[in-house]
Amino acid sequence: MGALLLDSEPAPLETFNDSGRSACVLICEHASNVMPQRLGTLGLEEADLQRHIAWDIGAAKTARRLARLLDAPLLLQRYSRLVHDCNRPAESPDAMPEVSEVTAIPGNRDLTPADRLARIREIYRPFHFGISDFLDQRAAAGTETILVTIHSFTPVYKGKARTTELGILHDRDTRLSSLLIKSFPNVNARLNEPYGPKDGVLHLLNLHAAPRGLRHVMIEVRNDLIAMERGQDEWAQRLSVPLIHATAN
Amino acid sequence: MGALLLDSEPAPLETFNDSGRSACVLICEHASNVMPQRLGTLGLEEADLQRHIAWDIGAAKTARRLARLLDAPLLLQRYSRLVHDCNRPAESPDAMPEVSEVTAIPGNRDLTPADRLARIREIYRPFHFGISDFLDQRAAAGTETILVTIHSFTPVYKGKARTTELGILHDRDTRLSSLLIKSFPNVNARLNEPYGPKDGVLHLLNLHAAPRGLRHVMIEVRNDLIAMERGQDEWAQRLSVPLIHATAN
Repeated sequence: MGALLLDSEPAPLETFNDSGRSACVLICEHASNVMPQRLGTLGLEEADLQRHIAWDIGAAKTARRLARLLDAPLLLQRYSRLVHDCNRPAESPDAMPEVSEVTAIPGNRDLTPADRLARIREIYRPFHFGISDFLDQRAAAGTETILVTIHSFTPVYKGKARTTELGILHDRDTRLSSLLIKSFPNVNARLNEPYGPKDGVLHLLNLHAAPRGLRHVMIEVRNDLIAMERGQDEWAQRLSVPLIHATAN
Repeated sequence: MGALLLDSEPAPLETFNDSGRSACVLICEHASNVMPQRLGTLGLEEADLQRHIAWDIGAAKTARRLARLLDAPLLLQRYSRLVHDCNRPAESPDAMPEVSEVTAIPGNRDLTPADRLARIREIYRPFHFGISDFLDQRAAAGTETILVTIHSFTPVYKGKARTTELGILHDRDTRLSSLLIKSFPNVNARLNEPYGPKDGVLHLLNLHAAPRGLRHVMIEVRNDLIAMERGQDEWAQRLSVPLIHATAN
């Protein structure tokens, strides 16, 4: 039994359609608002666990639909990002935030080194080890991989409304982002909005895609657009178009 | 028993002075010319295994001296880079090269996906998992880390003599390289020579240091300068000076 997860609780990495034959591999780091039982609600109200601070609303459901359309493997993280944000390194204050947007997270205050290490070793690290091994298997077989992460963002942040509908995020490698941004001419789609590399949000791609030389992109959909099934279908379909195009090149 | 290593063969990650108290953590990816027994000599002559193609001559001995001077932990790879270069991703043709400089490596020809995966899973991956876990423990404890990799290069490459004596290699983050280059005014010291980021040699630092925001640098010493103990002492001492300075800032 670990210091954090019970034996009855699953490992953080969930794979969906892992034998999918697309070159695209989808990742959803902020798929879930589930808390490890030992952490309770981190001192939050249950209602707060439904908010964007705990997970990316609509992202996992959109990603599953996109995985089916592309026949792509999808790797999801099973626990709330408030436990360990798997798109942040352990060194980042955002990894186990004491405040998320404007909400204090009582259960993340005054963590001991042992508390932190348990979250790193039982959440962050096995999730990333699993991704590495999945990509290693593809590399060994000579299978091309395009890495795509699926996120959502809140339409109102710190009291300010956001007009961006779709964020196409990249760091140095723009091969895929430059293709995607052209596919949404009548959408308020923006490169590196509402976040970008300076905010540290390219962590997963800088860790897994760039050092391997894989084409990659991070997709952020405003969560009011994908909160319901109709929008999840719409955006999965729309996003599949440039990604299918990318796999043919 | 693995597909590559025998039970009697050690795991690829060797730690030296792991409780060292310096902020510097040293890494030597090309420390060794040892082959896993099952691979024999990869079809090479024994004399070829003494050449720079199999390892970085003098690097491990210099790194051990430097680790003692700094009281720094040092992480070394126990097997020849010809098995899996741990400073290259599995996707790189240089990871298990069929030709190194101008020497054909018969045992790296026609590798099957299973052959490749065994090398990735038993050499590359446990080495990097070990580094991740080591750095995770420091992160959890709030211990600062500066990552320094120690390499050597051959004085003659593809028939051409190299005048550079010391290479200070960096990618985007120049905080440490800009400090080090100033410390060797009367040495033929060069930034990103004889290799640089375009050659893929920043892989380990891009994987472990940059995504964590750690200061880092890659040091390349021309191997004729550190082939003997006298030179190993000299360069360990000289390199310790700016690194001790860096840890004080």
